[in-house]
Amino acid sequence: MAETMLAARMHQPGEPLRLDEVPVPSPGYGQVLVKVHACGVCGSDVHFVAGHSPVARTPITLGHEPAGVVHQAGPGVENAAPGQRVAVRPGTRCGECEPCSLGRDNICERSQVLGMHVDGGLAEFVVVPAQDVIPIPEGVSFAQAAIASDAVATPYHALIERGQLRPGETVAVFGCGGLGIHAIRLARLAGAATVVAVDVQPRALERAQRAGADIVINAGEERPSRAIRKALGGADLAVECVGHPDSIGEAARSLKRGGRAVVVGMGDQPVALPPPNAFTWSENALIGSFGSSAGTLRRILAMAASRRLDLSQSVSAVLPLRDVNSALDMLRAPDREVVRVVIEPGR
Amino acid sequence: MAETMLAARMHQPGEPLRLDEVPVPSPGYGQVLVKVHACGVCGSDVHFVAGHSPVARTPITLGHEPAGVVHQAGPGVENAAPGQRVAVRPGTRCGECEPCSLGRDNICERSQVLGMHVDGGLAEFVVVPAQDVIPIPEGVSFAQAAIASDAVATPYHALIERGQLRPGETVAVFGCGGLGIHAIRLARLAGAATVVAVDVQPRALERAQRAGADIVINAGEERPSRAIRKALGGADLAVECVGHPDSIGEAARSLKRGGRAVVVGMGDQPVALPPPNAFTWSENALIGSFGSSAGTLRRILAMAASRRLDLSQSVSAVLPLRDVNSALDMLRAPDREVVRVVIEPGR
Amino acid sequence: MAETMLAARMHQPGEPLRLDEVPVPSPGYGQVLVKVHACGVCGSDVHFVAGHSPVARTPITLGHEPAGVVHQAGPGVENAAPGQRVAVRPGTRCGECEPCSLGRDNICERSQVLGMHVDGGLAEFVVVPAQDVIPIPEGVSFAQAAIASDAVATPYHALIERGQLRPGETVAVFGCGGLGIHAIRLARLAGAATVVAVDVQPRALERAQRAGADIVINAGEERPSRAIRKALGGADLAVECVGHPDSIGEAARSLKRGGRAVVVGMGDQPVALPPPNAFTWSENALIGSFGSSAGTLRRILAMAASRRLDLSQSVSAVLPLRDVNSALDMLRAPDREVVRVVIEPGR
Amino acid sequence: MAETMLAARMHQPGEPLRLDEVPVPSPGYGQVLVKVHACGVCGSDVHFVAGHSPVARTPITLGHEPAGVVHQAGPGVENAAPGQRVAVRPGTRCGECEPCSLGRDNICERSQVLGMHVDGGLAEFVVVPAQDVIPIPEGVSFAQAAIASDAVATPYHALIERGQLRPGETVAVFGCGGLGIHAIRLARLAGAATVVAVDVQPRALERAQRAGADIVINAGEERPSRAIRKALGGADLAVECVGHPDSIGEAARSLKRGGRAVVVGMGDQPVALPPPNAFTWSENALIGSFGSSAGTLRRILAMAASRRLDLSQSVSAVLPLRDVNSALDMLRAPDREVVRVVIEPGR
Repeated sequence: MAETMLAARMHQPGEPLRLDEVPVPSPGYGQVLVKVHACGVCGSDVHFVAGHSPVARTPITLGHEPAGVVHQAGPGVENAAPGQRVAVRPGTRCGECEPCSLGRDNICERSQVLGMHVDGGLAEFVVVPAQDVIPIPEGVSFAQAAIASDAVATPYHALIERGQLRPGETVAVFGCGGLGIHAIRLARLAGAATVVAVDVQPRALERAQRAGADIVINAGEERPSRAIRKALGGADLAVECVGHPDSIGEAARSLKRGGRAVVVGMGDQPVALPPPNAFTWSENALIGSFGSSAGTLRRILAMAASRRLDLSQSVSAVLPLRDVNSALDMLRAPDREVVRVVIEPGR
Repeated sequence: MAETMLAARMHQPGEPLRLDEVPVPSPGYGQVLVKVHACGVCGSDVHFVAGHSPVARTPITLGHEPAGVVHQAGPGVENAAPGQRVAVRPGTRCGECEPCSLGRDNICERSQVLGMHVDGGLAEFVVVPAQDVIPIPEGVSFAQAAIASDAVATPYHALIERGQLRPGETVAVFGCGGLGIHAIRLARLAGAATVVAVDVQPRALERAQRAGADIVINAGEERPSRAIRKALGGADLAVECVGHPDSIGEAARSLKRGGRAVVVGMGDQPVALPPPNAFTWSENALIGSFGSSAGTLRRILAMAASRRLDLSQSVSAVLPLRDVNSALDMLRAPDREVVRVVIEPGR
Repeated sequence: MAETMLAARMHQPGEPLRLDEVPVPSPGYGQVLVKVHACGVCGSDVHFVAGHSPVARTPITLGHEPAGVVHQAGPGVENAAPGQRVAVRPGTRCGECEPCSLGRDNICERSQVLGMHVDGGLAEFVVVPAQDVIPIPEGVSFAQAAIASDAVATPYHALIERGQLRPGETVAVFGCGGLGIHAIRLARLAGAATVVAVDVQPRALERAQRAGADIVINAGEERPSRAIRKALGGADLAVECVGHPDSIGEAARSLKRGGRAVVVGMGDQPVALPPPNAFTWSENALIGSFGSSAGTLRRILAMAASRRLDLSQSVSAVLPLRDVNSALDMLRAPDREVVRVVIEPGR
Repeated sequence: MAETMLAARMHQPGEPLRLDEVPVPSPGYGQVLVKVHACGVCGSDVHFVAGHSPVARTPITLGHEPAGVVHQAGPGVENAAPGQRVAVRPGTRCGECEPCSLGRDNICERSQVLGMHVDGGLAEFVVVPAQDVIPIPEGVSFAQAAIASDAVATPYHALIERGQLRPGETVAVFGCGGLGIHAIRLARLAGAATVVAVDVQPRALERAQRAGADIVINAGEERPSRAIRKALGGADLAVECVGHPDSIGEAARSLKRGGRAVVVGMGDQPVALPPPNAFTWSENALIGSFGSSAGTLRRILAMAASRRLDLSQSVSAVLPLRDVNSALDMLRAPDREVVRVVIEPGR
């Protein structure tokens, strides 16, 4: 086995990633070494590089959406054998904290996120806990499996597990980037009667329409909550993928009586909600949703394998590892064309 | 308004229905008179006529799946006006018993089922409580709205509300008649990763395949629970639409660990379940499901209107009221071709 | 039967209620005439009289917590007979709107609240729909049944049905008036491991302690969210009974990872929530809760009858109808001693 | 540290346990060595010794309810340090199978039960995974913590998590041994309006009454389902702790419309259920429940610490390790006096 590998590492916020030659890591107890075949590049990677979101240390290899082949299993590993094709959960779970003990390991108190707290998947190899790898079923590509672990699993958890979406309900999706586009696809897949997409970029709204949105609303031109109430009498479920106070407030105001808004977006500004006379009276709810469980990822891969979920349009571009900074540039464009860029280190 | 009307009435078990000329009923307080444009004929009507299931009195007009136009509103009615196109819930609710008070009016303790306890919809007119009519959205035909109220709403309640189906799960449907075929369609609509259909009639299995089943199993040729476990490792959710002990036992045995079986089928034979060492150990569940709520019917009509749910293949034949006994014959055929026959009294 | 009766009516906001002699109303179809034996006076009555909350018309008889004996049943009534002791739901349900059709009649779109939209229970008689009366079990007094319908049923719905409280969780109650005190009692009854009470009035906190709070926090002296996090690492469930932005914000900040805050309080000021980086990351939820269903009221009366729920300390004072303005004064006192005042028109 | 220890080991089914001197085991990666201060002896240990339930190998040290002090932490352990007082989950979880990945690790497909698949806690020391130990809060004894992990956590999971018990509901407990007695206590703790206890032993029924049952039924003298329906109109929730077909059938028949029966009992005989005409029509459910999660055990210890849950009567006898066969004899008596016997190896 090669003793060194290439890894896309962040040295300083504000600087491009560097392609460093580093030692191939060794899997410890309960860990596996995965040869990376594909790794998604995500909007949050742009934030790390810009310094808007902190990483735990520098230099650090970015990338929290890897997929590949188990190369070597550390001691104590039983479920994963060399040669197995696997997707990888973006964050670890300790198995011992209160949320873990209650079956909610997506909000593990000691979770370590790949490419944020520990070295990630934008490299030729990555080491991860064996309990965080999920077999990729036949017929699902590495690139699709890579983005499934975050860009698809996160909105599934939001819509289905936190939002309790039921067939025949109306859904409004605020923000049509990587998460939002998959929220639209999943809402359709789960039987939503009507799906509304909200964004400020015309190109994002075209994409939303292609992904299955029935109604698109440009929030720069009209007030989404008013348009949604007018067209549908309000949404049963709103999913907010932006994390901005205006967008969250509009999501809350777009609900019908008894409706709920799930917030997936991250952001550091306080949020203003309608007064209790609206909120309490209507029994609305604002529900945070973070990441997903390994079981969710399993289900998404099963749906991709049985062709229920079409991920063929989800990967906008595939680039070799040496072009990782170009991948980041593609995500920086304001009216960007891409949903998700995937790096294939083997190219 | 005509003072008499034709009604298909049962006088004696074992005899054909008679087309009687009877007075047009008057809507009482809180009731509406509906001019029937379509009324589904159901397998349970065959049972009433055969005397297998008792009706509350004879003669009685059968038919619990009517749809039509509000002709006259009784005193105290606010939500329904003459001219409105409406679907009708098959059974009434008292609004006062314990299940009603807990929001579960589908199991109302004093429910009166149309065409079983009171005169039903196989007639030119029918009287029903105003709270049991639901507006039919544009683009949905009377025939589709008629069958939606039972043949579609019942499996929706079973799969979604009682069975808690989630996208990506595997579903097994036992019995592919009117309920089962729609259970298959709804499982697909709700994002099931794999849908298995079980029946003993080859024709029913062909129909199941056309409705979207991925795998079909002839229970006369192989043991369904074994085949399902072999193909999928077990089902997350089984829906039993037959009501026969063998079928219910097989549904229970087809489950994976943590899976649940929902029983929609009716029948009068005791049921044998696997021992607790299987049942308790695996945390399986056997869940009864009866009818549905008005809210469920609303959602189904909304999905039919937005073309999420295709009911165009659900009505096998449309006959005039005078051919009601032919309709029953079509349902009596053992390897029947039809899913649902609809009577249109206006023909 | 007497042809006139006394009723405490509001003629103008800002004026005391007047004791008018008015005709005894007649029950219409599906309605009953109840001879009022007790009627709770609530903080919201103070708001109506002050003009802070609007009533639908004047003059209007106030009072939404009546209990008494069925005096006369209108036509079409089957479940209630003269002589029956009954509690009364504060608001009606239409049975036909979307929330009603989904089993959530507490948020009925056309609900009419007693003493707000129609004449209420601060009178010798009141007319209500038969479906809104619940039999009072033996051993429960009229005064207890009166307050059960709102002051107890509302926090039950908030804690149990909306908040999904489970035994062993920690609960924080913000605001220790009529709703809050019963939220504390019910949290204890439902097996909460630790109950924290927050208020700004020392007397309210003493009352909270007597009702079962383990820890009391004076929000005027320390920041509740900080104190709760310090003592318990955060609450699993917070119930906000005030409706003030500061209090709602503190309730949200007091939660542990995965915790939820239920807002029962009403108010007209917008609410500021922590940013998504806290809210989304921790999968917290802010959940509106309004009123309750008839089934909830049934359960509360059952618990009062079997002595699980002790309501003996819940009624602070009992006054005759002529002293209704004194009752309002007792609720106006800033550091009030009373939880709930009940009027007994028969005194 | 001592290099050998005493362990109560089963060599042959049908023979008494032998007190063997064996090497003190060493904790591997992610494991801890616990010095056992108390270990519950359970009805299933009687079954192992009798040969009714198989163990994975012989000789094997029995005991799945240990509690003690962390003596030594293996490599990779972060959450547990020497000196810490801990309770221990009876079975391990793999963290990787489908149920584990969905947050249901109590039904882990590769779970290893202490004292059944691996050496258990009836010894001076036991090795367990660090993720299976839970800190014991102050004020809870080792003996109480020992039985909490199974005899209390199992019925909590059955009543609360699987059975969804809500305050004000009626509960029937079938079988009043170690599990049943705690089911009664927990039902009271969780606010059940009425608790019915069913057994065939008068002594068990006396115990049930002391634990809080409102009504006791001797199933040898009257038919429980009939008595429960007569007294209460049926139970909202039945919990079956015996695993016998008659008892499970009676539990199912005791339910009111919409009620559910949870089966905790194990057994190898098939179960006969009422026909669908009863079961489907009433929307009843039969729900298997197995073990519990670590989060459940945390909550129980929290309730014991805050004195909500009184476990002072739960331990009937405390014996030294050398008397382990006497402990088994105490559990073998047909009309046994004891609920739970605890071995304290340090005595």
